[in-house]
Amino acid sequence: MSEENQLSDAEELQERLAEVQTLLARHKLVEDLVQRQEGPRHELVEELVHKQHLHELQQKLDPMHPADIAYLLEALPQDERLLTWTLVKPEYNGDILLEVSDAVRESLIEVMAPSELIAAAETLDADELADLVPDLPQEVVDDVFRSLPAEEREHLRAAMSYPEDSVGSIMDFDMVTVREDVTLEVVLRYLRRFDELPDHTDQLFVIDRDEHLKGVLPINVLLINDPEAEVGALMLTEYVDFEPEDEAEDAAKAFERYDLVSVPVTDADGRLLGRVTVNDVVDFIREEAEYEQLAKAGLAEEEDIFASVWDSVKNRWAWLAINLITAFVASRVIGLFEDSIEKLVALAALMPIVAGIGGNSGNQTITMIVRAIAMGQVQPDAMRRLLRKELGVATVNGLIWGGMLGIAAWWMYGSPLLGMVMTAAMTLNLLLAAFAGVGIPLLRLRFGADPAVGGSVMITALTDSGGFFIFLGLATLFLM
Amino acid sequence: MSEENQLSDAEELQERLAEVQTLLARHKLVEDLVQRQEGPRHELVEELVHKQHLHELQQKLDPMHPADIAYLLEALPQDERLLTWTLVKPEYNGDILLEVSDAVRESLIEVMAPSELIAAAETLDADELADLVPDLPQEVVDDVFRSLPAEEREHLRAAMSYPEDSVGSIMDFDMVTVREDVTLEVVLRYLRRFDELPDHTDQLFVIDRDEHLKGVLPINVLLINDPEAEVGALMLTEYVDFEPEDEAEDAAKAFERYDLVSVPVTDADGRLLGRVTVNDVVDFIREEAEYEQLAKAGLAEEEDIFASVWDSVKNRWAWLAINLITAFVASRVIGLFEDSIEKLVALAALMPIVAGIGGNSGNQTITMIVRAIAMGQVQPDAMRRLLRKELGVATVNGLIWGGMLGIAAWWMYGSPLLGMVMTAAMTLNLLLAAFAGVGIPLLRLRFGADPAVGGSVMITALTDSGGFFIFLGLATLFLM
Repeated sequence: MSEENQLSDAEELQERLAEVQTLLARHKLVEDLVQRQEGPRHELVEELVHKQHLHELQQKLDPMHPADIAYLLEALPQDERLLTWTLVKPEYNGDILLEVSDAVRESLIEVMAPSELIAAAETLDADELADLVPDLPQEVVDDVFRSLPAEEREHLRAAMSYPEDSVGSIMDFDMVTVREDVTLEVVLRYLRRFDELPDHTDQLFVIDRDEHLKGVLPINVLLINDPEAEVGALMLTEYVDFEPEDEAEDAAKAFERYDLVSVPVTDADGRLLGRVTVNDVVDFIREEAEYEQLAKAGLAEEEDIFASVWDSVKNRWAWLAINLITAFVASRVIGLFEDSIEKLVALAALMPIVAGIGGNSGNQTITMIVRAIAMGQVQPDAMRRLLRKELGVATVNGLIWGGMLGIAAWWMYGSPLLGMVMTAAMTLNLLLAAFAGVGIPLLRLRFGADPAVGGSVMITALTDSGGFFIFLGLATLFLM
Repeated sequence: MSEENQLSDAEELQERLAEVQTLLARHKLVEDLVQRQEGPRHELVEELVHKQHLHELQQKLDPMHPADIAYLLEALPQDERLLTWTLVKPEYNGDILLEVSDAVRESLIEVMAPSELIAAAETLDADELADLVPDLPQEVVDDVFRSLPAEEREHLRAAMSYPEDSVGSIMDFDMVTVREDVTLEVVLRYLRRFDELPDHTDQLFVIDRDEHLKGVLPINVLLINDPEAEVGALMLTEYVDFEPEDEAEDAAKAFERYDLVSVPVTDADGRLLGRVTVNDVVDFIREEAEYEQLAKAGLAEEEDIFASVWDSVKNRWAWLAINLITAFVASRVIGLFEDSIEKLVALAALMPIVAGIGGNSGNQTITMIVRAIAMGQVQPDAMRRLLRKELGVATVNGLIWGGMLGIAAWWMYGSPLLGMVMTAAMTLNLLLAAFAGVGIPLLRLRFGADPAVGGSVMITALTDSGGFFIFLGLATLFLM
């Protein structure tokens, strides 16, 4: 990315978006006029006016940073987005495709010719290409692959071979390496031969002739020390490094703990393979947080807000189907007790309270436990301690809230026994919620599944069906 | 933080935790023995054995990085945590207090003497102190304030004056500034006079004699250019800068868009005040994501998993109370139709399905809209377009899923009319969910409230009560 790019703060970015939208709207107005008003009369003038807005738009886009153009494209509806996309400087295409969300990227790639895609791909580094390749048509990938120099091709192959969410998948290959037996003066002179240092070069990697990493030389150390000193005497030998198979999440935590900017990645023999930089970690953290949010609401993937109704339906259907099944099961549980409800219709009005509060309480427990697991705070032997505490909380809440509801039920329906059933059912369902809230994530962890995924659905299903069963069951036992 | 600290990857950290736990367990065992076996017999030996484990523990802790000790403390139950805390090197106390979660920090501060707290505070920079001050006893704050040099005191006052979630609240004051009329050679010599450069110094700030920021000189530019060149000729004049009143969230987005490491903060006149670095941005992003997760489950704050039952109850009660009220309202809606349910008990079994699916679908919509708002993609005029799309999705889902359920209800209860009521109620409740899912966040945005907070509760309350009302109302109209 060249340095003359215009950089915008949040407010300026909103202004740019408004300007672009105005130009697009004017362009559309003229286009509509031209289409309506047939005949050759003003053709030339119209053609000029017509083009003028697009020309103005292009002039707005040209100095903008690719990341900002990506933002604009995401905020525009489909047809305006594609029109704008044709006006973007071709040399930014690659960077922009990397920046936009998956859904928008697909829509942009769809309208690009293979030659444009190849040109865009050629502006990217191997690690960036690896992120783009899964979305490209096979013939473009083959062509790009052939056109790469051998070393780049090797890098691309390596970057693509690491599983998602591994350190390898967020690693890049832009490193500056030095030898330990040279002086800082030599290093400084060596650096002056670069046209540009790789972004986020906060340290140089000290390697031997077999590419084994021997230490790191922070730029800060390079700058404050006597140029006559040797690298080997000043390099740090206590540093963080990763292997490409490590979890990206663990790497992100190390960046947070130690406030890192770049970290070397080595193979099992200690040979330097690449590095991870903080910008990739920031993107990773943000994506993880978003993925979790979307997963919690049952959205399969990030949704382009301008997607078609049909695309949105597809993105959301799996979750609705699962919920339909669990709701159906809960409904059948109620069906078992239709006789009791017929005799005492108050049960129908009270049962959703028992189920609902159980679900809320269970979700609180599971959120806390999943979080503690994610932060590595839960040792296997902690299960009993956590369970004891959550059962305690459930009992207290059951007695307080359940007691209040019991009194309310007694008062509304004039039956002290109904009130007692209500209190007992609330307490039991909260205990069930506590059990499940601790048990589900810990069991998932033990069986190697992600403790965060789907826990909320499972616990809500359990406390719904369980709550109906407990409440209606107790009522049938004691009130019928 | 000194550089000889031992740095650990995720696995090593788990090992350290296990070692510490083993030592603490052994220590406890000996202590129990000593208490049980009274009399003076082995006193000396026991005293030695007793102390030995603590000594070993201390030796484990001494070389560890403060952030890692913070992690250990969070993973230990209260009594073991406090015992371990007493063994930590005093010069790390300040850094550790900054790293641990709020709940754990409170428990640690509680057991520290004022003199210890003052000593800990004195190891911190003004911007770090500002984060700690709200948790310190007033007399300690007063003492610390008095002991600070004038400039630091000014910094602390400034840092504390900015609202939470503003750029000012994550800004620090560790900058290296240079003048534009000097050569790189002079800058390099100036830097060599530092003992250490501030962390995350990826650029120097170029200021005039009135401290106005004129440009930035990236370290990379400094390193690759001829030492005879002047700063003014090489500095960048197109750079991102913030004002302290800007939203930290907007700053975080700029870091993400432009892959930044540090950004200068200036006042309205362009005078350099401080800088924001990427490590604070990473912490901010992580905290925001966690806060949202907790808020969604109705946890008032981060909960120490080893907190007492009573603390946990307090942390969770507000949410349960709100849910109790909304569940009670829904229950009263059902109460209105008790006559209908008595006549046709199938209604009781089917009504939770209508309510539940509406809630799920509404939560999907609201998640998507809130996300789009957060990414700045929703312009005011987008409301109509979004609403149209969501209503389309709701209609499709209502007809598909509602139709299936209608057939199921027909089949189970032998009433085609009941099936049609079911389908109609599902479709109407999904339309209600779509309206609310788009409307609630956009209305909150218009009235200046955070569109993310509480939306999920509101929509669930609406689709529950609304779903019951629509279904039972239609049934009463057409089936009674």
